Amino acid sequence: MRQFKNSHPSEPRSIPMDKIWEIKKRVLNDIKPKREDIKAINDISDEIIGMIRKKADEMNLEADVILVGSASRDTWVSNGEKRDIDIFTLFPEKFDEDFLEEKGLLLIEEAMQGWRLEKRYAEHPYAHAFLEREVNGEEMSFEIDLVPCFDVKDPSEIKSAVDRTPYHNRYIKRNIKGKEDEVRILKKFLEILGVYGSDTKTHGFSGYLCELLIIKYGKFEDLLIEASRWKPETYIDLEGHGKYERKEPLIVIDPVDPKRNVAAALSLNNLSIFIDAAREFLKRPDESYFQKREVKIRSEEELLKIFSKRGTHLNALSFKRPLFVEDIIYSQLERTIKGIRRRLEELGFKVMNAYIYADSKDVLLLFEFEVWALPRVKKHLGPKVFDWKGEESFKRKNRDFKIYIEDGRYVADKPRKFTTIEEFLKKEVLKCALGKNVRESIKEGYEILDLDEILEREDARRFLSGIIKGN
Amino acid sequence: MRQFKNSHPSEPRSIPMDKIWEIKKRVLNDIKPKREDIKAINDISDEIIGMIRKKADEMNLEADVILVGSASRDTWVSNGEKRDIDIFTLFPEKFDEDFLEEKGLLLIEEAMQGWRLEKRYAEHPYAHAFLEREVNGEEMSFEIDLVPCFDVKDPSEIKSAVDRTPYHNRYIKRNIKGKEDEVRILKKFLEILGVYGSDTKTHGFSGYLCELLIIKYGKFEDLLIEASRWKPETYIDLEGHGKYERKEPLIVIDPVDPKRNVAAALSLNNLSIFIDAAREFLKRPDESYFQKREVKIRSEEELLKIFSKRGTHLNALSFKRPLFVEDIIYSQLERTIKGIRRRLEELGFKVMNAYIYADSKDVLLLFEFEVWALPRVKKHLGPKVFDWKGEESFKRKNRDFKIYIEDGRYVADKPRKFTTIEEFLKKEVLKCALGKNVRESIKEGYEILDLDEILEREDARRFLSGIIKGN
Repeated sequence: MRQFKNSHPSEPRSIPMDKIWEIKKRVLNDIKPKREDIKAINDISDEIIGMIRKKADEMNLEADVILVGSASRDTWVSNGEKRDIDIFTLFPEKFDEDFLEEKGLLLIEEAMQGWRLEKRYAEHPYAHAFLEREVNGEEMSFEIDLVPCFDVKDPSEIKSAVDRTPYHNRYIKRNIKGKEDEVRILKKFLEILGVYGSDTKTHGFSGYLCELLIIKYGKFEDLLIEASRWKPETYIDLEGHGKYERKEPLIVIDPVDPKRNVAAALSLNNLSIFIDAAREFLKRPDESYFQKREVKIRSEEELLKIFSKRGTHLNALSFKRPLFVEDIIYSQLERTIKGIRRRLEELGFKVMNAYIYADSKDVLLLFEFEVWALPRVKKHLGPKVFDWKGEESFKRKNRDFKIYIEDGRYVADKPRKFTTIEEFLKKEVLKCALGKNVRESIKEGYEILDLDEILEREDARRFLSGIIKGN
Repeated sequence: MRQFKNSHPSEPRSIPMDKIWEIKKRVLNDIKPKREDIKAINDISDEIIGMIRKKADEMNLEADVILVGSASRDTWVSNGEKRDIDIFTLFPEKFDEDFLEEKGLLLIEEAMQGWRLEKRYAEHPYAHAFLEREVNGEEMSFEIDLVPCFDVKDPSEIKSAVDRTPYHNRYIKRNIKGKEDEVRILKKFLEILGVYGSDTKTHGFSGYLCELLIIKYGKFEDLLIEASRWKPETYIDLEGHGKYERKEPLIVIDPVDPKRNVAAALSLNNLSIFIDAAREFLKRPDESYFQKREVKIRSEEELLKIFSKRGTHLNALSFKRPLFVEDIIYSQLERTIKGIRRRLEELGFKVMNAYIYADSKDVLLLFEFEVWALPRVKKHLGPKVFDWKGEESFKRKNRDFKIYIEDGRYVADKPRKFTTIEEFLKKEVLKCALGKNVRESIKEGYEILDLDEILEREDARRFLSGIIKGN
């Protein structure tokens, strides 16, 4: 298909629309929730809403209870496994935040007595319920978030981040009618690309962002056509009331809060991955864009061969995963890996790739090096010779080394603190900028693994098989 | 001597003046020409001037013949070896440059028949004579430059660079009286520092610059006091008529040509070396500043030990020295070593030091590496994903490699062209930016030497012993 060589992919004549429509139809067949799924979710949410309302009456609390999220907007994607239900309990704005955390949560816990509940923490605590239920002879599992929030009058003056959600819900319900399936297709497309979800691990597209993009462009393929020619800082403002001035890769003004960019969590890289996939899909549409690719786990031998062909050096820092929620841990792990990488490069080493792997128990920070060993000697740059104030102290501090002048500066050839990365990781990893809880976990103990030790671990092999860029 | 810790070295109370005066006296005793040296130079120059004048009469040429340079200004330093004599023949401005190169040089050659003459090339050709003569029972050798030039009316409108010299000569002779010994001391100080001479090998202080600095500051030690607090772009304008706007480390306006910086050839580094030595000398004056330090030639074993302790990697490119004058060769060698170094660093290697060694026959370009070997794989950065025009061609060119997206750009992991510097030097050194004649010489043949091969050569050992910064 060379016809795109000199024409933009959004050139309408070039796009095989029939093929795209056919693919969408087949994909929808897989991902659109069945009538019994929808009924099950509605039944369960009605049940829970009734329980909380009843308890609120009993406790004499003024509260409104509503179903929000994709279940309420009919934009969820059935994937055969878990079904998400978000139920918000709205309290009058006059109460303070302590009320929400104490009375609000208490109401939910009392109402749900007997259910499998867990207290979770975002900006504020909320309750999470797990439910397994037989529906029409099939075992179904449900994940239910039960969130207390304030019923604010103005969504641009919220007291807690979750207070916006009821407004989002109303906005989408008012505007999405007839386009729900387009949202589902988009979500699946992004999920397979690995860029669906605005959590700190993914830095991708939130469900709300998907809905707004479909409201804006109408159809999945029309969004792809637009996206394929997006420029940096593309600005989308559905209500034309935006007041956003920060520069971010994509700016989608929140219709319910003009100061907010709904795409703020989306990284440049994930946006780029989406744009690239949009162009490729428009050129060569294929159902595989909606099908999970199974990663073939490579054997120790295969991976050894790949790394020896690359000629790089792989090391990992291994430690226990701190017991905090995913969102907190991932942003800390990112800070940690950046901090270590920065320090390694300050020391003269060169990191080619750095990866975070974390499961429920362990963390591996993997570094692939371009330069992992350095000479003992290092040029230690001092002040300019013109700067006579710095001279004395530089000469005093370096009196044990030969000082010379190069490019008009004092220079001393001094021994390097670390000539290998292993030495550095052993002795100074705790001096890097690390995330708080990650630091504590590393303090309790960590290991430095070399390539052989890394490849002994099946989890590491699985992870490396997924990311390694070897040919 | 800690009293300088918080005071500038030019703080007069702190300077041991008596010690300095004593040293100057002893040094002068060594370097001031003896009466018989002066007489011998005067006799020889009178003789040559007479010969040229006579020949000019015979040839019916209008010409003035004068002694210029340090011999005429009485600022030369006797070093027991060679004695420089500069004799200029001035022709009327009305003639053109061809006249100078043909008739002018012919006059000199005819006048000097029977002498050991050599034609040399600067901006224009000139003659050089060697002379060995017994003076008072001592064998003395003389180096005589015989330069034809124009007798221009305005030294700021010269026809050839040498036309300024007679003006310089007159200016210095008019102003230097009584300060000649200070010039000698300064020249010796700079010579020992390795920064005396404005040739392209040295990039140091010319004799004329030394004379102007002494005219400005009067005494050697007063110049040091001033220099020790010079800032970048210090501007010295003896006649107060400067029109110089370029930024250079030191600007000394030529009294006979206000558009010219006499210190233009002086490198930042050599100026810095002088400033540093000035401060050190004022703090701890010592006669050793005027005594040539003998470089102890280190043995192969010693040098091997030094490099193994440094942990660096030494390589040299060895080729025949092109048959051109020093000034041309050195600027070409500098361009060459810079060109090779730049290319090596573009390829990902890291050069710690690069040195030029050249004797009359051979050249060695020495590179000391911090990183001399790299992985086979390399990140090849492509266009930004936003740039859809660059996308197609990047993907087409790299279709054999796995392309991925990083920091919003397309990236392909590709094999590196060279994983070791030896490979590169073997295959692509001629693709670097090299000096013209150096390129031709390298084309005819070159060798790549490793540390052992370098250390086998006595000349290389001597050179390395002088520069190596090992402790």
